[in-house]
Amino acid sequence: MSNSIKKIGVMTSGGDSPGMNAAIRSVVRACAYHKIECYGIYRGYEGMIDGDFVQMDARSVKGIINKGGTILKSARSQTFRTKEGRAKAHEELIKAGIDSLVVIGGDGSFTGAMIFNQEFGFPVMGIPGTIDNDIFGTTHTLGYDTALNTVVDAIDKIRDTASSHNRLFFVEVMGRDVGHIALNVGIAGGAEEILIPEEDLGLDRLVESLRRSKKSGKSSSIVVVAEGDKIGKSVFELKDYVDQNMEGYDVRVSVLGHMQRGGAPSCFDRVLASRMGVRAVESLIAGKSNFMVGLKNDIIDLTPFDQAVKGKSKINMELLRVSDIMSI
Amino acid sequence: MSNSIKKIGVMTSGGDSPGMNAAIRSVVRACAYHKIECYGIYRGYEGMIDGDFVQMDARSVKGIINKGGTILKSARSQTFRTKEGRAKAHEELIKAGIDSLVVIGGDGSFTGAMIFNQEFGFPVMGIPGTIDNDIFGTTHTLGYDTALNTVVDAIDKIRDTASSHNRLFFVEVMGRDVGHIALNVGIAGGAEEILIPEEDLGLDRLVESLRRSKKSGKSSSIVVVAEGDKIGKSVFELKDYVDQNMEGYDVRVSVLGHMQRGGAPSCFDRVLASRMGVRAVESLIAGKSNFMVGLKNDIIDLTPFDQAVKGKSKINMELLRVSDIMSI
Amino acid sequence: MSNSIKKIGVMTSGGDSPGMNAAIRSVVRACAYHKIECYGIYRGYEGMIDGDFVQMDARSVKGIINKGGTILKSARSQTFRTKEGRAKAHEELIKAGIDSLVVIGGDGSFTGAMIFNQEFGFPVMGIPGTIDNDIFGTTHTLGYDTALNTVVDAIDKIRDTASSHNRLFFVEVMGRDVGHIALNVGIAGGAEEILIPEEDLGLDRLVESLRRSKKSGKSSSIVVVAEGDKIGKSVFELKDYVDQNMEGYDVRVSVLGHMQRGGAPSCFDRVLASRMGVRAVESLIAGKSNFMVGLKNDIIDLTPFDQAVKGKSKINMELLRVSDIMSI
Amino acid sequence: MSNSIKKIGVMTSGGDSPGMNAAIRSVVRACAYHKIECYGIYRGYEGMIDGDFVQMDARSVKGIINKGGTILKSARSQTFRTKEGRAKAHEELIKAGIDSLVVIGGDGSFTGAMIFNQEFGFPVMGIPGTIDNDIFGTTHTLGYDTALNTVVDAIDKIRDTASSHNRLFFVEVMGRDVGHIALNVGIAGGAEEILIPEEDLGLDRLVESLRRSKKSGKSSSIVVVAEGDKIGKSVFELKDYVDQNMEGYDVRVSVLGHMQRGGAPSCFDRVLASRMGVRAVESLIAGKSNFMVGLKNDIIDLTPFDQAVKGKSKINMELLRVSDIMSI
Repeated sequence: MSNSIKKIGVMTSGGDSPGMNAAIRSVVRACAYHKIECYGIYRGYEGMIDGDFVQMDARSVKGIINKGGTILKSARSQTFRTKEGRAKAHEELIKAGIDSLVVIGGDGSFTGAMIFNQEFGFPVMGIPGTIDNDIFGTTHTLGYDTALNTVVDAIDKIRDTASSHNRLFFVEVMGRDVGHIALNVGIAGGAEEILIPEEDLGLDRLVESLRRSKKSGKSSSIVVVAEGDKIGKSVFELKDYVDQNMEGYDVRVSVLGHMQRGGAPSCFDRVLASRMGVRAVESLIAGKSNFMVGLKNDIIDLTPFDQAVKGKSKINMELLRVSDIMSI
Repeated sequence: MSNSIKKIGVMTSGGDSPGMNAAIRSVVRACAYHKIECYGIYRGYEGMIDGDFVQMDARSVKGIINKGGTILKSARSQTFRTKEGRAKAHEELIKAGIDSLVVIGGDGSFTGAMIFNQEFGFPVMGIPGTIDNDIFGTTHTLGYDTALNTVVDAIDKIRDTASSHNRLFFVEVMGRDVGHIALNVGIAGGAEEILIPEEDLGLDRLVESLRRSKKSGKSSSIVVVAEGDKIGKSVFELKDYVDQNMEGYDVRVSVLGHMQRGGAPSCFDRVLASRMGVRAVESLIAGKSNFMVGLKNDIIDLTPFDQAVKGKSKINMELLRVSDIMSI
Repeated sequence: MSNSIKKIGVMTSGGDSPGMNAAIRSVVRACAYHKIECYGIYRGYEGMIDGDFVQMDARSVKGIINKGGTILKSARSQTFRTKEGRAKAHEELIKAGIDSLVVIGGDGSFTGAMIFNQEFGFPVMGIPGTIDNDIFGTTHTLGYDTALNTVVDAIDKIRDTASSHNRLFFVEVMGRDVGHIALNVGIAGGAEEILIPEEDLGLDRLVESLRRSKKSGKSSSIVVVAEGDKIGKSVFELKDYVDQNMEGYDVRVSVLGHMQRGGAPSCFDRVLASRMGVRAVESLIAGKSNFMVGLKNDIIDLTPFDQAVKGKSKINMELLRVSDIMSI
Repeated sequence: MSNSIKKIGVMTSGGDSPGMNAAIRSVVRACAYHKIECYGIYRGYEGMIDGDFVQMDARSVKGIINKGGTILKSARSQTFRTKEGRAKAHEELIKAGIDSLVVIGGDGSFTGAMIFNQEFGFPVMGIPGTIDNDIFGTTHTLGYDTALNTVVDAIDKIRDTASSHNRLFFVEVMGRDVGHIALNVGIAGGAEEILIPEEDLGLDRLVESLRRSKKSGKSSSIVVVAEGDKIGKSVFELKDYVDQNMEGYDVRVSVLGHMQRGGAPSCFDRVLASRMGVRAVESLIAGKSNFMVGLKNDIIDLTPFDQAVKGKSKINMELLRVSDIMSI
């Protein structure tokens, strides 16, 4: 029932992503708007177990919409995976009078929330925050759009060097299970080839493609590689393979790493976070639970947690074809 | 018929926007991929009338995907509005063997293309390029996403000063007919109020809202104003009004101006441009004409020119409500 | 004597500039390092008069080195210009046990500090913080380098539009009394002409120069104008003059405004702020007073306040010549 | 004699750096200004040997002042290290009528120029272009200031993640022989410790310092490591050492890599490049040869090549002390 919600707890969990702070701000202000108390829970489920809470009002979240990371901090909790851990967390919430939760994080965090809901009937809502965009039920996760721009900016810089020296660069970008980042930054960065977890291009075709591009008059090339690419070679092994099987290329490697997770969120991520936070709070007020807020066709919608964590986020195969045409 | 297309002309027309170069690149490379000749037409319809054409191959568009502006330049043409102008333009195209057109621009440019098609049966396709996002038939025009980030970045900077000095800023952003930019950057920039062409907030409610926010403990405020806001006052008149009707605020004005149009396109705009260019070329090959390529629900789709130019791009009213809640 | 310093107050005064927070951080941490207490004074001399102080330790300034604006806020104080105001300020400092001051600001702020020192013998040190770089005794003021990059980035964007449309832009940048910003961004932005407070180019020579550049094949031009340029015309009047006296140019105006003051400080400004803060604190400890910390030949040095406020910061005339050669 | 100079060749050599294009532009325009012909030489000494030249006028360098990399491309040449190679290069220059050279590059490139001058009496001038700032005779090399900002921006992003997760990051930055970049970005990025080639901090002191900082309440830390740091361990080995010798830290590594070399040059680098190019050309006209143009105390000055290549660029030891104080 809507009238049961009096005190919402909000937390960030799993890897941080740009837009998490904007989502915290939105949850806090939506609570203030609806005259509901709001508590921040530090360090995800770890802080929940420790009762590490802080009361937040509209002014507590001033000046954070444009900050990367999360002011509530994040962590991965082993203890919350145990029944005892979750019981302790529940106890702490009850003690503080918190009666419902907004979890900002990825599918691991949502699985935790779902189990917690099953065990204690505690109302929970999820907001998808991860740069990988690997969550079913939303076309965009918080931080994804920002990460795309961060990576493209880095690739633009690498291209300056690549084209000044006629080099071939393997650039590793994030994406252990899905190729969203690789595919989009590959097209936007003018990559010769894009290696993703969803498709096995094969080493031979890679070398062949690089040969063809060289022949066609290109003097430098960038190959974007997702962390979890299907070929199963690291960027360093790819470099070795090309060194041994191709002539005339000075091959280099760049692993972009953690900087992909940080930075001020893009306009898109800030607006998305603001919309999602409002919807999460209003859904709890409306008596809903166990859903993830998502973006579908530019509309904010809900997906049941069990679908969100079981489903698979799919890449747009049209983009592979566009990439092929662009790298002619 | 598809087999009639042998030589495509591509041009940019109207105000420039980031992503136009990426779209030119895509059209040129899609032509190369499909073994069709491609010609660049300089300065929009002006250059068409002058026969100012250049042959382009895949290498001609190297290194432009990340450049703002348009290498083909743009212009507004009075001559093309006359029957004689269009006849001359047609003559020049025929002389050069160009048998179909891709026009990258706004609704004025599409109206020109539509009339040209009616008069001469010349195959034409449009790609929406303008930062204002004011075109029916696509959720995003080329350059819109980039402009949002440019403006938000500027507002973040203005906020540094606003909050250091407890000031109220009126920030004017682009948007003569639609409030897309104002609405989104207003939310993303944490604006107190957003004035747009679609809604008349009214001066009294503006002042009242500023008073309330001051009372609630906010020491600085930003009001985002679209060029064409409904109140019908310039930012300077708004400043004067507030100066006269409110106490305790140091009011300033910032007109962001033309810098909003420039800069390296965002990842989103580059990918969108790449997709649209391919689709425009392949639609011409497939015998289609008189359509605008657009993005609908993350899918590239076609809208007939007459619908595109007659229709109205609508703002998302949900965002107005989100903005209200966020500025509590 | 050095042993008299036990409690330092730090404040920001006048217009804010990027690097002020980094300087606050440095003063606070240098105090912690030397086991001296440190108090932040809010809103410059206004807060001093109000006794608006906050104790700060090394952790209080965490995460601010990269933030624009000033966490201590700034203000211009009329009351401090009166003898009574200053007496009240002195009383408040004594009451709080603060025995010396670091003032981060411009020459107006230093004049205040100097008078305060004369009247009460209160130890004061200054750190030059203003984007205009108009202070004698330092080659660089805090925020100047950051502002240069902010303005150049904006001009790059404007050039995208200018060159796509063959336009002439008058871009107004900050600099009421000195042309440092205009001169440097003019060269860096590839400006056709640069109008500064130190030199009267004259309207005729401006028009002549624009005519020559057009003749030489340039299709677009940017003229950078300092707020206080010697010709004494606003950018809007300049536009009108050129509109009336030249043909074939589509002339536009852009006033960059307050965004020039904000943003994350550059590496240079952060390092400079860190060095200056340490030196200011250690100078007070060493018994010095009434000096401004400055950068001279890449070395941190002291300049007596009376010289700093009387002297004039001079532009490098070599740059005018370089600009002339570059715009050939 | 000044009257002997009729045709200047300009080239970029060694690793590319932001500002090289601005320097090329300056050399070309200074030539145009002084009515001297100018030729671009592609791919450094390699292109000189191949006679790969292109005539350049003032318009050839339009729109490149803000582009990273080098439009003339760069390379390292083994052949030029041989007497035959240099003879062939000289022959090609003579054949093309080129009578003097401006070499933009690092000390390896200057050594080549010096030998070339000794063997053939060919007039040569150098402009220092490298991000490492490791050249004697100038306080700043072209690209150094830009790289500082690029790296600080990346560290800011990494800190977002570090502080959200209470992590320790080892961030490797460029600097094989000198610690300029590491030292400055370490201070600007708020690093806990900075490891540079000039100083052996020692592993024990590093661990001790990290322990102390943890104790003092810091929850996350960044250690900046120059490629060539004196401890002689890679960032990965450092991580392993800390993993084994400290508890309670989640340690991560980020190697920033080649993106540090690219990007639009900062205002400082563009102005410096413009000044240096003019001076290089005017020095050749004045009959000078065998010098490097450098910046000393904000003035453009000349240093004989033999001093420039033998000397050592020294870090500012004051910065080490400032860093220590800041990381309290």
